[in-house]
Amino acid sequence: MIRVLFAAQPDKWAAYAPHLEAGFEEARLAVSLSQDLAPSTVDYIIYAPNSVLQDFTPFTACKAVLNLWAGVETIVGNNTLTQPLCRMVDPAMTQGMVEWVTGHVLRHHLGMDAHIRAPAGTWQPSAPPVAWDRKITVLGLGQLGAACATSLARLGFNVHGYARTMKEIDRVTCHTDIKAALDAADGVVLLLPNTPKTQNTLNAARLSYVAQGAFVLNPGRGPLIEDGALLDALDRGQIGHATLDTFRVEPLPPDDPYWHHPNVTVTPHIASETRPKWASKVIVENISRHEAGLPLLHVVNRERGY
Amino acid sequence: MIRVLFAAQPDKWAAYAPHLEAGFEEARLAVSLSQDLAPSTVDYIIYAPNSVLQDFTPFTACKAVLNLWAGVETIVGNNTLTQPLCRMVDPAMTQGMVEWVTGHVLRHHLGMDAHIRAPAGTWQPSAPPVAWDRKITVLGLGQLGAACATSLARLGFNVHGYARTMKEIDRVTCHTDIKAALDAADGVVLLLPNTPKTQNTLNAARLSYVAQGAFVLNPGRGPLIEDGALLDALDRGQIGHATLDTFRVEPLPPDDPYWHHPNVTVTPHIASETRPKWASKVIVENISRHEAGLPLLHVVNRERGY
Repeated sequence: MIRVLFAAQPDKWAAYAPHLEAGFEEARLAVSLSQDLAPSTVDYIIYAPNSVLQDFTPFTACKAVLNLWAGVETIVGNNTLTQPLCRMVDPAMTQGMVEWVTGHVLRHHLGMDAHIRAPAGTWQPSAPPVAWDRKITVLGLGQLGAACATSLARLGFNVHGYARTMKEIDRVTCHTDIKAALDAADGVVLLLPNTPKTQNTLNAARLSYVAQGAFVLNPGRGPLIEDGALLDALDRGQIGHATLDTFRVEPLPPDDPYWHHPNVTVTPHIASETRPKWASKVIVENISRHEAGLPLLHVVNRERGY
Repeated sequence: MIRVLFAAQPDKWAAYAPHLEAGFEEARLAVSLSQDLAPSTVDYIIYAPNSVLQDFTPFTACKAVLNLWAGVETIVGNNTLTQPLCRMVDPAMTQGMVEWVTGHVLRHHLGMDAHIRAPAGTWQPSAPPVAWDRKITVLGLGQLGAACATSLARLGFNVHGYARTMKEIDRVTCHTDIKAALDAADGVVLLLPNTPKTQNTLNAARLSYVAQGAFVLNPGRGPLIEDGALLDALDRGQIGHATLDTFRVEPLPPDDPYWHHPNVTVTPHIASETRPKWASKVIVENISRHEAGLPLLHVVNRERGY
């Protein structure tokens, strides 16, 4: 009997338990899944960074900690965690992110807001350039960044990407020099991991590289943006619009300037929602693999931080 | 020196001249481009059917007339025109349509308007289903409809299409039965041609087939919709939102109910605009070809009429 502790917040139990139970049964794994197990008996922990559980010391037999979220920055530094930590790579989450990014890039590219908000009788036909004439830069070319860059390139955008190490992605011009990646970009998509090195990546200097009136999308992590520099660039028109899904503090406090800036759209951290049905399949697969002696998927490199 | 007369309406000069001049230079063609040249010295005429120029007799040295529009029905019968006439086939027009359709489908799918219009402090995370779980139906599978259906299918939508004759399109479920195509659709895109048979295609009966709260996009032709039936379906919530780019009367009169319905977005016939930059490339390419002794592209068959 494999003993799996569900240590994500209790309000997630109802959404996940049926999918996990069904998955274990389908995989023919004899599993005892519970929110309450004696620590020394636990084989696997299903986890979320906001879990109450923070001290992993008593879990002496634990083989792996399986995260329900992609982001692991609040747990990688936990020294009591000595077991392998796996982050969530959920195909539906990647799909949702591709939809959010592609949709909001097209929204800004086409200037939809002007039509959505136009007073009755406004008939001023003026077509935007086609996507071929728009440079969109994706910062971060991990799984999510690469998928979004590919989707935008398929639609015809002139897509550039930046990552710390050189990547090869079909139809995407990749850079390891962030200045070259951002140079004269019409739109910037932030999908870097959140590490000490990536904090404030989009600062005043970087914001000056892009085309006048460019848009910024941040479905990645709040700390990637130096907020004061972005607000200043919005005030000056250097940035035409920012659509932000992630923030340093969430929920975004009601008095935050982002709520009140006319050229900022706030979405409430929905770009990369995990869908329980699909996330459960990933958890079941990883436990199945480990039990069969295969390597775990999506293991976090604790030194690198992701 | 090649002498090119720009004989489209003067208000188009500013948009086209820079792209044409740049194109001629890039093609290393020595061209004198002007709105005013002695007729007997003109080598090529850039034309639009609403041009003032109607008598081609004095253009004794003219090698070809290059139209800026796809439609040539008002000029093919002009007997003073004895030179080859080329119509515009602009790849950017299909691209622009794909962008408008894909963008507005994603907008409605993701529920963007709620975020664009949300009062400050609104933080209600709820992710939509992924595109895999959305049925989008494209009515009309000609060049534009097929291109849009393919783009939506690539993004992951469950795409169905309807045409009078059976079509085969990769990843798109095609129908010749419009009821089957519309059944429980979450979104409908109208791209049928405008013929006596297609008028009022989207009538009260057809609107009742789709899923409650579905959205309608009409980038095709105004008469495809029975306007009263659509407004009634919007009032009842059977249709959640309509985004319309084409109308029976354009510009849409300021007192039209579409302007004043909270769940209708009007765009001013911009989904399939010709872009001067790309249309200019087509003109330059044709002149280059003719000067190099190659056959002209897109020559109108004057007897057939297109």
